[in-house]
Amino acid sequence: MDKFFSKISKIKYEGVDSDNPLSFKYYNPEKKIGNKTMAEHLRFSVAYWHTLTEDGSDPFGVGTMQRSWDDINDPMQLAKTRVKAAFEFMDKLGVEYFCFHDRDIAPTGDSLKETNQNLDEIVELIKEMMDQTGIDLLWGTSQLFVEPKYMHGAATSPNADVFARAAAQVKKAMEITKELGGENYVFWGGREGYQTLLNTKMGLEQDNMARFFEMAVDYAEKIGFDGQFLIEPKPKEPTKHQYDFDVANVLAFLRKYGLEDKFKMNIEANHATLAGHDFQHELHYARANNVIGSVDANQGDKLIGWDTDQFPTDIYATTLAMYEILKSGGLEPGGLNFDAKVRRPSFKPEDLFHGHIAGMDTFARGLEVAHKLLEDKALEDFVEERYSSYQSGIGKKIVAGETSFEELAEYTKENQIVNSSGRQEMLESILNQYLIES
Amino acid sequence: MDKFFSKISKIKYEGVDSDNPLSFKYYNPEKKIGNKTMAEHLRFSVAYWHTLTEDGSDPFGVGTMQRSWDDINDPMQLAKTRVKAAFEFMDKLGVEYFCFHDRDIAPTGDSLKETNQNLDEIVELIKEMMDQTGIDLLWGTSQLFVEPKYMHGAATSPNADVFARAAAQVKKAMEITKELGGENYVFWGGREGYQTLLNTKMGLEQDNMARFFEMAVDYAEKIGFDGQFLIEPKPKEPTKHQYDFDVANVLAFLRKYGLEDKFKMNIEANHATLAGHDFQHELHYARANNVIGSVDANQGDKLIGWDTDQFPTDIYATTLAMYEILKSGGLEPGGLNFDAKVRRPSFKPEDLFHGHIAGMDTFARGLEVAHKLLEDKALEDFVEERYSSYQSGIGKKIVAGETSFEELAEYTKENQIVNSSGRQEMLESILNQYLIES
Amino acid sequence: MDKFFSKISKIKYEGVDSDNPLSFKYYNPEKKIGNKTMAEHLRFSVAYWHTLTEDGSDPFGVGTMQRSWDDINDPMQLAKTRVKAAFEFMDKLGVEYFCFHDRDIAPTGDSLKETNQNLDEIVELIKEMMDQTGIDLLWGTSQLFVEPKYMHGAATSPNADVFARAAAQVKKAMEITKELGGENYVFWGGREGYQTLLNTKMGLEQDNMARFFEMAVDYAEKIGFDGQFLIEPKPKEPTKHQYDFDVANVLAFLRKYGLEDKFKMNIEANHATLAGHDFQHELHYARANNVIGSVDANQGDKLIGWDTDQFPTDIYATTLAMYEILKSGGLEPGGLNFDAKVRRPSFKPEDLFHGHIAGMDTFARGLEVAHKLLEDKALEDFVEERYSSYQSGIGKKIVAGETSFEELAEYTKENQIVNSSGRQEMLESILNQYLIES
Amino acid sequence: MDKFFSKISKIKYEGVDSDNPLSFKYYNPEKKIGNKTMAEHLRFSVAYWHTLTEDGSDPFGVGTMQRSWDDINDPMQLAKTRVKAAFEFMDKLGVEYFCFHDRDIAPTGDSLKETNQNLDEIVELIKEMMDQTGIDLLWGTSQLFVEPKYMHGAATSPNADVFARAAAQVKKAMEITKELGGENYVFWGGREGYQTLLNTKMGLEQDNMARFFEMAVDYAEKIGFDGQFLIEPKPKEPTKHQYDFDVANVLAFLRKYGLEDKFKMNIEANHATLAGHDFQHELHYARANNVIGSVDANQGDKLIGWDTDQFPTDIYATTLAMYEILKSGGLEPGGLNFDAKVRRPSFKPEDLFHGHIAGMDTFARGLEVAHKLLEDKALEDFVEERYSSYQSGIGKKIVAGETSFEELAEYTKENQIVNSSGRQEMLESILNQYLIES
Repeated sequence: MDKFFSKISKIKYEGVDSDNPLSFKYYNPEKKIGNKTMAEHLRFSVAYWHTLTEDGSDPFGVGTMQRSWDDINDPMQLAKTRVKAAFEFMDKLGVEYFCFHDRDIAPTGDSLKETNQNLDEIVELIKEMMDQTGIDLLWGTSQLFVEPKYMHGAATSPNADVFARAAAQVKKAMEITKELGGENYVFWGGREGYQTLLNTKMGLEQDNMARFFEMAVDYAEKIGFDGQFLIEPKPKEPTKHQYDFDVANVLAFLRKYGLEDKFKMNIEANHATLAGHDFQHELHYARANNVIGSVDANQGDKLIGWDTDQFPTDIYATTLAMYEILKSGGLEPGGLNFDAKVRRPSFKPEDLFHGHIAGMDTFARGLEVAHKLLEDKALEDFVEERYSSYQSGIGKKIVAGETSFEELAEYTKENQIVNSSGRQEMLESILNQYLIES
Repeated sequence: MDKFFSKISKIKYEGVDSDNPLSFKYYNPEKKIGNKTMAEHLRFSVAYWHTLTEDGSDPFGVGTMQRSWDDINDPMQLAKTRVKAAFEFMDKLGVEYFCFHDRDIAPTGDSLKETNQNLDEIVELIKEMMDQTGIDLLWGTSQLFVEPKYMHGAATSPNADVFARAAAQVKKAMEITKELGGENYVFWGGREGYQTLLNTKMGLEQDNMARFFEMAVDYAEKIGFDGQFLIEPKPKEPTKHQYDFDVANVLAFLRKYGLEDKFKMNIEANHATLAGHDFQHELHYARANNVIGSVDANQGDKLIGWDTDQFPTDIYATTLAMYEILKSGGLEPGGLNFDAKVRRPSFKPEDLFHGHIAGMDTFARGLEVAHKLLEDKALEDFVEERYSSYQSGIGKKIVAGETSFEELAEYTKENQIVNSSGRQEMLESILNQYLIES
Repeated sequence: MDKFFSKISKIKYEGVDSDNPLSFKYYNPEKKIGNKTMAEHLRFSVAYWHTLTEDGSDPFGVGTMQRSWDDINDPMQLAKTRVKAAFEFMDKLGVEYFCFHDRDIAPTGDSLKETNQNLDEIVELIKEMMDQTGIDLLWGTSQLFVEPKYMHGAATSPNADVFARAAAQVKKAMEITKELGGENYVFWGGREGYQTLLNTKMGLEQDNMARFFEMAVDYAEKIGFDGQFLIEPKPKEPTKHQYDFDVANVLAFLRKYGLEDKFKMNIEANHATLAGHDFQHELHYARANNVIGSVDANQGDKLIGWDTDQFPTDIYATTLAMYEILKSGGLEPGGLNFDAKVRRPSFKPEDLFHGHIAGMDTFARGLEVAHKLLEDKALEDFVEERYSSYQSGIGKKIVAGETSFEELAEYTKENQIVNSSGRQEMLESILNQYLIES
Repeated sequence: MDKFFSKISKIKYEGVDSDNPLSFKYYNPEKKIGNKTMAEHLRFSVAYWHTLTEDGSDPFGVGTMQRSWDDINDPMQLAKTRVKAAFEFMDKLGVEYFCFHDRDIAPTGDSLKETNQNLDEIVELIKEMMDQTGIDLLWGTSQLFVEPKYMHGAATSPNADVFARAAAQVKKAMEITKELGGENYVFWGGREGYQTLLNTKMGLEQDNMARFFEMAVDYAEKIGFDGQFLIEPKPKEPTKHQYDFDVANVLAFLRKYGLEDKFKMNIEANHATLAGHDFQHELHYARANNVIGSVDANQGDKLIGWDTDQFPTDIYATTLAMYEILKSGGLEPGGLNFDAKVRRPSFKPEDLFHGHIAGMDTFARGLEVAHKLLEDKALEDFVEERYSSYQSGIGKKIVAGETSFEELAEYTKENQIVNSSGRQEMLESILNQYLIES
């Protein structure tokens, strides 16, 4: 367990005064925040694809990353080496979960059969490593967007043969997720959308997507997979327009097809902002609709129009995210999966640690602040007072559904309307005060 | 009928070679396109607020518009004058519908009672003018966003007294819409959203909004108003984030509360683009969900982040909009309402004509092109072929819901996947060919 | 001095543990940061227009603000009352500067002559209040965008008579700015741009703008005004496209016409982000070009496409802004002018205090953090090392301009290129550590 | 010449009524538009990188393109085959120019020396093919953004060794461009910018970029290369922020370092819109500053935040672009280079033809419309009238620089200001009329 990142020791909590960049300043896994430890609250997960297979390429440049396994050429040997490196990395970092796409962990073979055999072999090794380290699988998924066959979509392809192939791939991915004790199974429809409406039947495509999900639900039942199904919204990229645009778009879809009880959301910060929503908005909205499932913990750059998948370092965003998560009763069985990659010029192995440490510390600090805000009711008291008119009199009748336009018209005749200030500036000051000093 | 725009004669169709800017080049109301006239297809409507009351002010400048009623000071006399000017304008333009907000047509009084009396007086006059001209009411609505009392929302206000006042206002607006034979009733929730989540309970607010809509439905039944209810999506502005973000967000809401059978959508081009969707996307999506109700015909500037409400002059947008509308069987009982205002520097009365002529011609031309595209199956044949695999074999079973992951996995073993090109570039060329020359 | 905000006492520094929202948590004017006090570094200024005359109206709603002078109807009496209220407000807040547009402080008369007389009368009163309180004028400007006459531009109007009127107005505004001892004079070209290129000669308009600036420079010399001229970049709004798009656009213009020695920049945070730049970018770029003049201290919402002019509460933004400002040697004779307005639902007089306190505290904290970052060379050491190859050998020759493509081609033959990591994630962690705890 | 696209014959002009998608509807190379043929006006160029080497990969998927040279493994054989395919393609399409980056045409060797030898060998072949076909080189450039060594920039790298390597690469690229008779040489600084300001010295980097350009100018003189130097602005991507943000940013830079006489602009439509400008804006602005050099003819999707490099099919954009180009006297020695790629799902060889045909037809049509607009003075007469006040009286004095604030203030006393309408809606109608029917 000291082979692939041999220059790096186990990352320790050293507190905020440490000037060791390879230590935690805020993340102290055993520290109790309320009735749970930080580790129990945050349930951090490493994203296998970004951390083990991302090479730093972008549309204008080839890969830059330097990894100790760069000179291995045999695909299966490379895959096995990455498994070992992954668990060394997670162990040193002290992360207790990971997530994967089927195609990250094992190479594609010449046939689906061979591909599945490759998968089985790697899954065996992963199981061993999981046993050895105690690290668990947060979720698995199937990568239905990289290969040319999925160019027009997978479950929404205009080609029925592609739909069938996607079904076979998801079937296998569900099986291995179950095999590895995965607590959730995620769908991200990277090509489920369109490039141009000139050649697209959106209605048929969405009907087919619903049929695909129904079959997935049936199959889960058949094999006894009882993890939570999650859908991950994203508005655009790689397609011009993706069907799972945001949480509400997905809910409109699920409710149309009677699937709302079977799925929750895997909410990604950067996808939220690409859809024109704050990260907190998507979480708050999901909370109000009881569909917070898990979180892809990253951040975008709001001045940039593509998915930058940066490590989350904005303390406002993580505080407000943890605020929503605490109010919804926590993430379990979901977690905070770092769907984030180091910047292309951060090409050294230690940058993988810097990135994850930055993310873990920023969320740990966000957890502390959010907890304190809630404990002190620093915002809640104001908000409760703001809505108090719905707890008696005409407000109570409105909420109870016991009034009508006629009664309300009668009521309002006698009433002078008095509003109070929304106090946004004061509340932002209070947030700053907690964020910096609490 | 020649008093307020006396320099302008009735606008006539003069055809594309005319160099008279105050004539129609494409809009020929009697011309048959398929089995309906242009006028029957397009159902143009003047937006009372923009055309009669908009003064050209913006956040950095006062009004600029020069109108023949500028020197009238008495509010009721001004309101009556505008009614007469409105009907002269519509008559000269040859538009057969109009739309209004309650507060555009009559001044606010010192009490709700007085305000309602003002409304009643103006409604009488409007009825007379409607009788005289044969112009009909496309829809009415209630303006719940201008007055300070609605600063925190109307149906989603944290203040129950505001909810009650909004109910009374909508009740009255529904009554006068019925009185005037309005074919639809629209809800645009200009302040239904939030400025900051720090002081907001989104769940309670949306529950209350649903209660408000339920009461509206009940009251319509009670008074025998059988027009179509419409909700108008908009993502942001004036609030930081509005609940009716886009068609899908509204559908998620309606389906949650069991309201989906009672409401359709009033889709606005500029609101679509502010939400990150093409106008055609919102129409196509609404068509697939059977909720195209009516259209707010305008356009935005995609490089500008606020609602510019420009007159629609982009022939691509109107062609693709009419394409979706024709495929959905037409707009009736909805229409094309010009929710558009002349630019601030287009301050002369004749600019109102130029703006509407531009919009009407651009939609008329769009109708012609869309009709020809459909008649020739210029795009349809390609699209049908593209999805043909779902009409037999495994595709047919998928669509019928008669297969499973196991069967599909078995099926895909024997199949080589062959995709065909999406041909976006070719289809865009064909569109151009039709657009310019058909 | 206790008449208009009588419920509010003088705002005091109470430190971070205070739970009095009407106190400073970080801004302690006398506290030394390096060799200057906080007050000397920050040079806070109140924006007369937002704080005294803004009524809370927006494109979808009328004013909401409640002010103690709401019931005064006589324009001159109202103007005088606001002057007194302004100085009471600034005095209670402990702000030492203010800024104004000519048209904020005094009402427009029936003629330019009468308008100028109004101005003179108010300027007298302002002088008295300045003497009484010791509060100074940071800058004056002329409002050339509200009135209809400027609908097509002022110095860039297609109408020469408008150009002449604008010249007369700026002439007077420069005179009163001098009279009041203003340290700077600002140009914000709110209508200097275009709505559509179809009717615009950009070349002529920009040539005219240059001529206007030349005359301003000449007139300043003539009257002995030696304050700094500043141009305020903004990319769009109210026009579709403004000529002073960003700092670089303004520099391209100034350098074309040989005006670069006469003007610096008044950089606004929200304008920077509307142009697609981070606030820090514009400051860093201005620093590299030696044109940081003054700052309009506010913030926008990057998910919103218009100028929201919010009070600055983002500690990242203020820290990085102060970092650039400290590195450039400070703001003097510029300052931090709160070009910010309370949100429309923050309509109470005390919200004006909450807003300014939030902004002052956030900048004070940013100053502390930036100073500590620089003192510790927490980022600087890394950056110096990163560029160290330019301090010797071939790098030194490059910087000295003493080499050529041929020599470099010869040199590179023997060289293996070794890059180091950009370490963005580590640097962001360090910033967080300082921001929260320093 | 019929080997690589053997299913496709030479593309002919068949006119607008043809339903052969592999024909030109508008582009008739010999047709006279004014005093030049369409071919002479438009100077179309194929972008070697997109058309010959682009494989359809994106950040979420591998390549999809099917090309007849896909099974060639030897890099030099592949490079030679592509050269032959390129000239067959251009010949069949009837395009008379091409553009390349050094690294597209020949493979990178183990050393710079070997790479340059590869280049020389391919350049020989290209020369042969140019002689054989009569196709010319519009411009060459050096690709300084793909390889890891340029991760932090090339001329703006913090590493002097990288600067030197970039210099050597550009030196060679200039030599081969001269060798092939290239009419221009382009700089696109794909990595000249920053990922984070936390580690960046913008001032030093831009100084170095200026030094780099100076050396390029010197070297051109030395070798007798007299083609036009062009800089291509782009605001962001691949870096977070690129120095050559837009035309104005580049002009600010060139004027700072006294380089403005040596460089013009290569303006790309999609880059313009990513910077928040209409394509026409950048051309109009460049025209006003006399720096239109050449055009990268493509289009983006304004709802998408990255460089989509689509083939230009928007007739508004091409008409207004050609309008600016005609007014500036034409493009020569620049041209219209299709910096555009077929969509990933348009993966068949014939899609390359569909894409280019779409682009060529759309620009040909744009040329016709623009020419007719100018010939008829359909917009010009209105615009001239609009600015006529600057041709006499006070306006003439303003333009001549013969007045002052004092004189203008005196003048304006006696003047009533009368503006005329900007007539945007009418002008947009006229544009539509010409666009569809002329």
